[in-house]
Amino acid sequence: MERRSGNDLKNLKNRIAAMGGFVEQAIERSTQALQERNVDRFKDVWALEKQINQAHIEVDDACVDILARLSPLAADLRLIVAVIKINSDLERMGDQAVNISHNCEHLFNEEPIELDLNLPAMAHAVHLMVRNALDAFMRGDIDLAQKVLESDDEVDAFKNRVFDLLVPYMKEHPSRIQSALDLILIARNFERMGDHATNIAEDVIFACTGEDVRHGVGHHN
Amino acid sequence: MERRSGNDLKNLKNRIAAMGGFVEQAIERSTQALQERNVDRFKDVWALEKQINQAHIEVDDACVDILARLSPLAADLRLIVAVIKINSDLERMGDQAVNISHNCEHLFNEEPIELDLNLPAMAHAVHLMVRNALDAFMRGDIDLAQKVLESDDEVDAFKNRVFDLLVPYMKEHPSRIQSALDLILIARNFERMGDHATNIAEDVIFACTGEDVRHGVGHHN
Repeated sequence: MERRSGNDLKNLKNRIAAMGGFVEQAIERSTQALQERNVDRFKDVWALEKQINQAHIEVDDACVDILARLSPLAADLRLIVAVIKINSDLERMGDQAVNISHNCEHLFNEEPIELDLNLPAMAHAVHLMVRNALDAFMRGDIDLAQKVLESDDEVDAFKNRVFDLLVPYMKEHPSRIQSALDLILIARNFERMGDHATNIAEDVIFACTGEDVRHGVGHHN
Repeated sequence: MERRSGNDLKNLKNRIAAMGGFVEQAIERSTQALQERNVDRFKDVWALEKQINQAHIEVDDACVDILARLSPLAADLRLIVAVIKINSDLERMGDQAVNISHNCEHLFNEEPIELDLNLPAMAHAVHLMVRNALDAFMRGDIDLAQKVLESDDEVDAFKNRVFDLLVPYMKEHPSRIQSALDLILIARNFERMGDHATNIAEDVIFACTGEDVRHGVGHHN
Protein backbone atom coordinates (compact mmCIF):
# COMPACT_ATOMS: atom_id res chain seq x y z
CA MET A 1 0.00 0.00 0.00
CA GLU A 2 2.69 2.49 1.03
CA ARG A 3 4.55 2.17 -2.27
CA ARG A 4 1.41 1.99 -4.36
CA SER A 5 0.05 5.20 -2.90
CA GLY A 6 3.40 6.99 -2.88
CA ASN A 7 3.18 8.32 -6.43
CA ASP A 8 -0.47 9.29 -6.09
CA LEU A 9 0.20 11.29 -2.94
CA LYS A 10 3.22 12.92 -4.52
CA ASN A 11 1.13 13.93 -7.53
CA LEU A 12 -1.58 15.28 -5.25
CA LYS A 13 0.91 17.37 -3.31
CA ASN A 14 2.37 18.69 -6.55
CA ARG A 15 -1.12 19.70 -7.73
CA ILE A 16 -1.65 21.67 -4.50
CA ALA A 17 1.77 23.28 -4.95
CA ALA A 18 0.87 24.31 -8.51
CA MET A 19 -2.50 25.67 -7.39
CA GLY A 20 -0.78 27.54 -4.57
CA GLY A 21 1.58 28.99 -7.18
CA PHE A 22 -1.42 30.40 -9.07
CA VAL A 23 -2.74 31.92 -5.84
CA GLU A 24 0.65 33.49 -5.11
CA GLN A 25 0.72 34.97 -8.62
CA ALA A 26 -2.82 36.30 -8.15
CA ILE A 27 -1.71 38.07 -4.96
CA GLU A 28 1.34 39.53 -6.74
CA ARG A 29 -0.66 40.77 -9.74
CA SER A 30 -3.32 42.30 -7.48
CA THR A 31 -0.62 44.11 -5.54
CA GLN A 32 0.98 45.39 -8.75
CA ALA A 33 -2.44 46.53 -10.02
CA LEU A 34 -2.94 48.49 -6.80
CA GLN A 35 0.53 50.02 -6.87
CA GLU A 36 0.36 50.98 -10.55
CA ARG A 37 -3.38 51.78 -10.43
CA ASN A 38 -3.51 49.68 -13.58
CA VAL A 39 -6.72 47.76 -14.18
CA ASP A 40 -5.09 45.69 -16.96
CA ARG A 41 -3.10 43.78 -14.36
CA PHE A 42 -6.37 42.25 -13.21
CA LYS A 43 -6.75 40.38 -16.49
CA ASP A 44 -3.99 38.11 -15.24
CA VAL A 45 -5.85 37.71 -11.95
CA TRP A 46 -9.03 36.65 -13.72
CA ALA A 47 -7.09 34.17 -15.88
CA LEU A 48 -5.36 32.80 -12.78
CA GLU A 49 -8.69 32.42 -10.99
CA LYS A 50 -9.96 30.31 -13.90
CA GLN A 51 -6.90 28.07 -13.58
CA ILE A 52 -7.41 27.85 -9.81
CA ASN A 53 -11.05 26.84 -10.30
CA GLN A 54 -10.07 24.17 -12.80
CA ALA A 55 -7.38 22.83 -10.44
CA HIS A 56 -9.94 22.87 -7.60
CA ILE A 57 -12.23 20.44 -9.49
CA GLU A 58 -9.30 18.24 -10.49
CA VAL A 59 -7.92 18.00 -6.95
CA ASP A 60 -11.31 17.05 -5.52
CA ASP A 61 -11.63 14.36 -8.19
CA ALA A 62 -8.09 13.12 -7.53
CA CYS A 63 -8.82 12.85 -3.79
CA VAL A 64 -12.02 10.86 -4.39
CA ASP A 65 -10.14 8.68 -6.85
CA ILE A 66 -7.26 7.95 -4.46
CA LEU A 67 -9.63 7.25 -1.55
CA ALA A 68 -11.68 4.85 -3.70
CA ARG A 69 -8.74 3.10 -5.33
CA LEU A 70 -6.23 2.83 -2.49
CA SER A 71 -8.25 3.09 0.76
CA PRO A 72 -5.33 4.86 2.46
CA LEU A 73 -4.97 4.73 6.24
CA ALA A 74 -3.53 6.77 9.09
CA ALA A 75 -1.11 9.50 7.96
CA ASP A 76 -1.90 9.08 4.24
CA LEU A 77 -5.62 9.32 4.93
CA ARG A 78 -5.24 12.43 7.06
CA LEU A 79 -3.10 13.99 4.35
CA ILE A 80 -5.89 13.51 1.82
CA VAL A 81 -8.53 14.90 4.18
CA ALA A 82 -6.25 17.92 4.70
CA VAL A 83 -5.89 18.31 0.91
CA ILE A 84 -9.69 18.37 0.49
CA LYS A 85 -9.83 21.29 2.94
CA ILE A 86 -6.73 23.09 1.63
CA ASN A 87 -8.14 22.82 -1.89
CA SER A 88 -11.25 24.77 -0.81
CA ASP A 89 -9.16 27.44 0.88
CA LEU A 90 -6.99 27.96 -2.19
CA GLU A 91 -10.08 28.24 -4.39
CA ARG A 92 -11.52 30.94 -2.11
CA MET A 93 -8.25 32.84 -2.11
CA GLY A 94 -8.66 33.07 -5.89
CA ASP A 95 -12.15 34.50 -5.30
CA GLN A 96 -10.69 37.11 -2.94
CA ALA A 97 -8.18 38.22 -5.58
CA VAL A 98 -11.08 38.70 -8.00
CA ASN A 99 -13.00 40.60 -5.29
CA ILE A 100 -10.03 42.98 -5.01
CA SER A 101 -10.35 43.70 -8.74
CA HIS A 102 -14.07 44.54 -8.25
CA ASN A 103 -13.27 46.82 -5.34
CA CYS A 104 -10.85 48.72 -7.61
CA GLU A 105 -13.46 49.50 -10.28
CA HIS A 106 -14.28 52.99 -8.96
CA LEU A 107 -11.04 53.44 -7.08
CA PHE A 108 -8.79 53.80 -10.13
CA ASN A 109 -11.09 56.43 -11.69
CA GLU A 110 -10.73 58.71 -8.68
CA GLU A 111 -7.76 60.70 -7.44
CA PRO A 112 -5.52 58.57 -5.19
CA ILE A 113 -5.92 59.01 -1.44
CA GLU A 114 -2.62 60.40 -0.18
CA LEU A 115 -2.22 58.29 2.92
CA ASP A 116 0.47 55.70 3.53
CA LEU A 117 -1.80 52.72 4.13
CA ASN A 118 0.96 50.15 3.60
CA LEU A 119 -1.33 47.96 1.47
CA PRO A 120 1.61 46.54 -0.55
CA ALA A 121 3.35 45.62 2.72
CA MET A 122 0.12 44.03 3.95
CA ALA A 123 -0.17 42.08 0.69
CA HIS A 124 3.45 41.00 1.08
CA ALA A 125 2.80 39.75 4.63
CA VAL A 126 -0.21 37.79 3.35
CA HIS A 127 1.83 36.43 0.44
CA LEU A 128 4.46 35.24 2.91
CA MET A 129 1.78 33.50 5.00
CA VAL A 130 0.53 31.70 1.89
CA ARG A 131 4.06 30.74 0.81
CA ASN A 132 4.91 29.45 4.30
CA ALA A 133 1.60 27.58 4.63
CA LEU A 134 2.28 25.85 1.30
CA ASP A 135 5.91 25.08 2.20
CA ALA A 136 4.74 23.71 5.55
CA PHE A 137 2.28 21.50 3.67
CA MET A 138 4.86 20.26 1.16
CA ARG A 139 7.45 19.48 3.82
CA GLY A 140 5.08 18.44 6.61
CA ASP A 141 6.75 21.16 8.69
CA ILE A 142 4.67 21.75 11.84
CA ASP A 143 6.97 24.50 13.14
CA LEU A 144 6.52 26.50 9.94
CA ALA A 145 2.74 25.94 10.10
CA GLN A 146 2.83 27.27 13.66
CA LYS A 147 4.72 30.33 12.42
CA VAL A 148 1.92 30.98 9.91
CA LEU A 149 -0.64 30.94 12.74
CA GLU A 150 1.42 33.49 14.64
CA SER A 151 1.81 35.85 11.67
CA ASP A 152 -1.97 36.29 11.51
CA ASP A 153 -1.57 39.01 14.19
CA GLU A 154 0.76 40.94 11.89
CA VAL A 155 -1.86 40.98 9.13
CA ASP A 156 -4.51 42.08 11.65
CA ALA A 157 -2.24 44.96 12.65
CA PHE A 158 -1.97 46.05 9.00
CA LYS A 159 -5.75 45.94 8.66
CA ASN A 160 -6.27 47.92 11.88
CA ARG A 161 -3.85 50.55 10.60
CA VAL A 162 -5.92 50.91 7.41
CA PHE A 163 -9.10 51.40 9.46
CA ASP A 164 -7.43 53.78 11.93
CA LEU A 165 -6.17 56.00 9.12
CA LEU A 166 -9.19 55.86 6.85
CA VAL A 167 -12.06 56.41 9.30
CA PRO A 168 -10.84 59.88 10.41
CA TYR A 169 -9.89 60.62 6.78
CA MET A 170 -13.47 59.89 5.69
CA LYS A 171 -14.78 62.27 8.34
CA GLU A 172 -12.52 65.06 7.07
CA HIS A 173 -13.00 64.31 3.35
CA PRO A 174 -16.62 63.20 2.86
CA SER A 175 -16.24 63.45 -0.93
CA ARG A 176 -13.61 60.66 -0.77
CA ILE A 177 -15.77 58.23 1.19
CA GLN A 178 -16.32 55.82 -1.72
CA SER A 179 -12.58 55.50 -2.43
CA ALA A 180 -11.79 55.14 1.26
CA LEU A 181 -14.45 52.45 1.61
CA ASP A 182 -13.02 50.61 -1.41
CA LEU A 183 -9.59 50.61 0.25
CA ILE A 184 -11.07 49.32 3.51
CA LEU A 185 -12.75 46.47 1.63
CA ILE A 186 -9.50 45.67 -0.20
CA ALA A 187 -7.70 45.48 3.14
CA ARG A 188 -10.43 43.07 4.26
CA ASN A 189 -9.90 40.98 1.11
CA PHE A 190 -6.21 40.62 1.92
CA GLU A 191 -7.04 39.89 5.56
CA ARG A 192 -9.41 37.15 4.39
CA MET A 193 -6.61 35.62 2.29
CA GLY A 194 -4.47 35.58 5.44
CA ASP A 195 -7.33 33.78 7.22
CA HIS A 196 -7.32 31.12 4.50
CA ALA A 197 -3.54 30.73 4.88
CA THR A 198 -4.16 30.24 8.61
CA ASN A 199 -6.73 27.56 7.79
CA ILE A 200 -4.19 25.81 5.57
CA ALA A 201 -1.61 25.90 8.37
CA GLU A 202 -4.17 24.38 10.75
CA ASP A 203 -4.87 21.63 8.21
CA VAL A 204 -1.14 20.91 7.93
CA ILE A 205 -1.00 20.47 11.72
CA PHE A 206 -4.13 18.27 11.54
CA ALA A 207 -2.49 16.14 8.85
CA CYS A 208 0.88 15.84 10.61
CA THR A 209 -0.11 15.42 14.24
CA GLY A 210 -3.59 13.90 14.03
CA GLU A 211 -2.52 10.57 15.39
CA ASP A 212 -0.80 12.14 18.36
CA VAL A 213 -3.29 14.79 19.46
CA ARG A 214 -6.47 13.07 18.38
CA HIS A 215 -7.48 9.44 18.58
CA GLY A 216 -9.04 6.54 16.81
CA VAL A 217 -7.40 6.52 13.38
CA GLY A 218 -5.92 3.24 12.31
CA HIS A 219 -6.90 1.31 15.42
CA HIS A 220 -9.97 -0.19 13.84
CA ASN A 221 -8.13 -2.14 11.18
CA MET B 1 -20.63 -2.65 2.98
CA GLU B 2 -23.84 -0.78 2.27
CA ARG B 3 -25.49 -2.02 5.46
CA ARG B 4 -22.37 -1.73 7.57
CA SER B 5 -21.83 1.89 6.60
CA GLY B 6 -25.53 2.82 6.80
CA ASN B 7 -25.56 3.73 10.49
CA ASP B 8 -22.24 5.55 10.31
CA LEU B 9 -23.41 7.74 7.46
CA LYS B 10 -26.73 8.39 9.17
CA ASN B 11 -24.88 9.46 12.33
CA LEU B 12 -22.59 11.68 10.29
CA LYS B 13 -25.54 13.38 8.60
CA ASN B 14 -27.22 13.90 11.97
CA ARG B 15 -24.06 15.52 13.32
CA ILE B 16 -24.06 17.95 10.40
CA ALA B 17 -27.76 18.64 10.99
CA ALA B 18 -27.08 19.39 14.66
CA MET B 19 -24.15 21.64 13.78
CA GLY B 20 -26.32 23.39 11.20
CA GLY B 21 -28.90 23.90 13.95
CA PHE B 22 -26.30 25.73 16.05
CA VAL B 23 -25.44 27.92 13.05
CA GLU B 24 -29.11 28.73 12.48
CA GLN B 25 -29.48 29.68 16.15
CA ALA B 26 -26.36 31.86 15.92
CA ILE B 27 -27.91 33.72 12.96
CA GLU B 28 -31.19 34.17 14.87
CA ARG B 29 -29.51 35.44 18.02
CA SER B 30 -27.32 37.84 16.03
CA THR B 31 -30.40 39.20 14.29
CA GLN B 32 -32.21 39.64 17.61
CA ALA B 33 -29.15 41.38 19.07
CA LEU B 34 -29.18 43.81 16.14
CA GLN B 35 -32.90 44.45 16.36
CA GLU B 36 -32.91 44.94 20.14
CA ARG B 37 -29.48 46.62 20.17
CA ASN B 38 -28.78 44.23 23.03
CA VAL B 39 -25.20 43.06 23.44
CA ASP B 40 -26.26 40.33 25.90
CA ARG B 41 -27.78 38.34 23.05
CA PHE B 42 -24.26 37.78 21.75
CA LYS B 43 -23.39 35.67 24.79
CA ASP B 44 -25.56 33.00 23.21
CA VAL B 45 -23.70 33.46 19.91
CA TRP B 46 -20.33 32.97 21.60
CA ALA B 47 -21.60 29.85 23.38
CA LEU B 48 -23.00 28.51 20.10
CA GLU B 49 -19.71 29.16 18.33
CA LYS B 50 -17.93 27.06 20.97
CA GLN B 51 -20.37 24.21 20.31
CA ILE B 52 -19.87 24.61 16.55
CA ASN B 53 -16.08 24.44 16.97
CA GLN B 54 -16.37 21.30 19.08
CA ALA B 55 -18.69 19.68 16.52
CA HIS B 56 -16.24 20.70 13.75
CA ILE B 57 -13.42 18.66 15.33
CA GLU B 58 -15.72 15.71 16.00
CA VAL B 59 -17.07 15.62 12.44
CA ASP B 60 -13.56 15.69 10.95
CA ASP B 61 -12.58 12.83 13.26
CA ALA B 62 -15.72 10.87 12.38
CA CYS B 63 -14.99 11.28 8.65
CA VAL B 64 -11.41 10.03 9.03
CA ASP B 65 -12.69 7.16 11.17
CA ILE B 66 -15.35 6.09 8.63
CA LEU B 67 -12.92 6.36 5.72
CA ALA B 68 -10.32 4.25 7.56
CA ARG B 69 -12.75 1.67 8.90
CA LEU B 70 -15.15 1.18 6.00
CA SER B 71 -13.32 2.33 2.84
CA PRO B 72 -16.61 3.57 1.35
CA LEU B 73 -16.98 3.85 -2.42
CA ALA B 74 -18.92 5.82 -4.99
CA ALA B 75 -21.90 7.75 -3.55
CA ASP B 76 -20.96 7.05 0.09
CA LEU B 77 -17.42 8.24 -0.51
CA ARG B 78 -18.57 11.43 -2.23
CA LEU B 79 -20.98 12.08 0.64
CA ILE B 80 -18.10 11.94 3.13
CA VAL B 81 -15.91 14.20 1.00
CA ALA B 82 -18.85 16.64 0.86
CA VAL B 83 -19.23 16.44 4.65
CA ILE B 84 -15.55 17.34 5.13
CA LYS B 85 -16.15 20.51 3.08
CA ILE B 86 -19.58 21.33 4.58
CA ASN B 87 -18.07 20.95 8.05
CA SER B 88 -15.53 23.71 7.28
CA ASP B 89 -18.24 26.01 5.92
CA LEU B 90 -20.42 25.60 9.00
CA GLU B 91 -17.46 26.32 11.26
CA ARG B 92 -16.74 29.54 9.38
CA MET B 93 -20.36 30.60 9.58
CA GLY B 94 -19.96 30.44 13.34
CA ASP B 95 -16.92 32.71 13.00
CA GLN B 96 -18.98 35.19 10.98
CA ALA B 97 -21.65 35.33 13.70
CA VAL B 98 -18.90 36.17 16.20
CA ASN B 99 -17.54 38.80 13.79
CA ILE B 100 -20.99 40.41 13.77
CA SER B 101 -20.79 40.71 17.55
CA HIS B 102 -17.41 42.46 17.26
CA ASN B 103 -18.76 44.85 14.63
CA CYS B 104 -21.53 45.82 17.09
CA GLU B 105 -19.14 46.84 19.88
CA HIS B 106 -19.20 50.57 19.03
CA LEU B 107 -22.49 50.47 17.16
CA PHE B 108 -24.70 49.89 20.21
CA ASN B 109 -23.08 52.75 22.14
CA GLU B 110 -24.01 55.25 19.43
CA GLU B 111 -27.40 56.62 18.42
CA PRO B 112 -29.09 54.34 15.87
CA ILE B 113 -28.86 55.32 12.21
CA GLU B 114 -32.43 56.04 11.11
CA LEU B 115 -32.35 54.31 7.75
CA ASP B 116 -34.36 51.26 6.79
CA LEU B 117 -31.45 49.00 5.83
CA ASN B 118 -33.51 45.81 5.98
CA LEU B 119 -30.74 43.98 7.85
CA PRO B 120 -33.20 41.64 9.63
CA ALA B 121 -34.74 40.77 6.23
CA MET B 122 -31.23 40.16 4.87
CA ALA B 123 -30.44 37.94 7.85
CA HIS B 124 -33.72 36.10 7.27
CA ALA B 125 -32.82 35.49 3.61
CA VAL B 126 -29.42 34.15 4.67
CA HIS B 127 -31.03 31.99 7.34
CA LEU B 128 -33.36 30.53 4.70
CA MET B 129 -30.36 29.76 2.45
CA VAL B 130 -28.67 27.92 5.32
CA ARG B 131 -31.85 26.02 6.21
CA ASN B 132 -32.43 25.03 2.58
CA ALA B 133 -28.79 24.04 2.05
CA LEU B 134 -28.96 21.79 5.11
CA ASP B 135 -32.32 20.31 4.07
CA ALA B 136 -30.91 19.71 0.58
CA PHE B 137 -27.98 17.92 2.20
CA MET B 138 -30.14 15.77 4.49
CA ARG B 139 -32.53 14.76 1.72
CA GLY B 140 -30.00 14.67 -1.15
CA ASP B 141 -32.31 17.17 -2.89
CA ILE B 142 -30.50 18.65 -5.89
CA ASP B 143 -33.41 20.93 -6.87
CA LEU B 144 -33.39 22.53 -3.44
CA ALA B 145 -29.59 22.91 -3.60
CA GLN B 146 -30.04 24.63 -6.96
CA LYS B 147 -32.59 26.97 -5.37
CA VAL B 148 -29.98 27.94 -2.75
CA LEU B 149 -27.52 28.87 -5.52
CA GLU B 150 -30.17 31.09 -7.10
CA SER B 151 -31.06 32.87 -3.85
CA ASP B 152 -27.51 34.20 -3.59
CA ASP B 153 -28.58 37.05 -5.89
CA GLU B 154 -31.27 38.07 -3.41
CA VAL B 155 -28.68 38.36 -0.64
CA ASP B 156 -26.41 40.37 -2.94
CA ALA B 157 -29.32 42.74 -3.61
CA PHE B 158 -29.77 43.26 0.14
CA LYS B 159 -26.08 44.00 0.53
CA ASN B 160 -26.09 46.43 -2.41
CA ARG B 161 -29.05 48.26 -0.83
CA VAL B 162 -27.07 48.66 2.41
CA PHE B 163 -24.14 50.16 0.48
CA ASP B 164 -26.37 52.37 -1.69
CA LEU B 165 -28.08 53.85 1.36
CA LEU B 166 -25.07 54.16 3.64
CA VAL B 167 -22.44 55.66 1.32
CA PRO B 168 -24.49 58.86 0.64
CA TYR B 169 -25.53 58.88 4.33
CA MET B 170 -21.87 58.88 5.37
CA LYS B 171 -21.20 61.83 3.08
CA GLU B 172 -24.04 63.81 4.67
CA HIS B 173 -23.32 62.73 8.26
CA PRO B 174 -19.55 62.45 8.66
CA SER B 175 -19.91 62.14 12.43
CA ARG B 176 -21.80 58.86 11.89
CA ILE B 177 -19.15 57.26 9.68
CA GLN B 178 -18.00 54.69 12.26
CA SER B 179 -21.54 53.41 12.85
CA ALA B 180 -22.29 53.35 9.12
CA LEU B 181 -19.06 51.43 8.49
CA ASP B 182 -19.97 48.94 11.22
CA LEU B 183 -23.32 48.34 9.52
CA ILE B 184 -21.63 47.86 6.14
CA LEU B 185 -19.28 45.29 7.67
CA ILE B 186 -22.22 43.50 9.35
CA ALA B 187 -23.99 43.32 5.98
CA ARG B 188 -20.77 41.80 4.60
CA ASN B 189 -20.74 39.26 7.45
CA PHE B 190 -24.26 38.13 6.55
CA GLU B 191 -23.33 38.08 2.86
CA ARG B 192 -20.36 35.86 3.70
CA MET B 193 -22.69 33.46 5.54
CA GLY B 194 -24.78 33.32 2.38
CA ASP B 195 -21.61 32.49 0.42
CA HIS B 196 -20.95 29.58 2.78
CA ALA B 197 -24.54 28.35 2.29
CA THR B 198 -23.87 28.51 -1.46
CA ASN B 199 -20.72 26.43 -0.96
CA ILE B 200 -22.74 23.85 0.98
CA ALA B 201 -25.32 23.69 -1.83
CA GLU B 202 -22.49 23.14 -4.34
CA ASP B 203 -21.12 20.34 -2.17
CA VAL B 204 -24.57 18.72 -2.05
CA ILE B 205 -24.67 18.76 -5.86
CA PHE B 206 -21.11 17.36 -5.92
CA ALA B 207 -22.14 14.56 -3.55
CA CYS B 208 -25.37 13.71 -5.39
CA THR B 209 -24.39 14.00 -9.03
CA GLY B 210 -20.65 13.32 -8.96
CA GLU B 211 -20.94 10.01 -10.76
CA ASP B 212 -23.01 11.53 -13.53
CA VAL B 213 -21.25 14.79 -14.26
CA ARG B 214 -17.72 13.74 -13.35
CA HIS B 215 -15.90 10.50 -13.97
CA GLY B 216 -13.70 7.87 -12.55
CA VAL B 217 -15.15 7.03 -9.15
CA GLY B 218 -15.81 3.41 -8.49
CA HIS B 219 -14.50 2.17 -11.81
CA HIS B 220 -11.10 1.29 -10.42
CA ASN B 221 -12.34 -1.37 -8.04
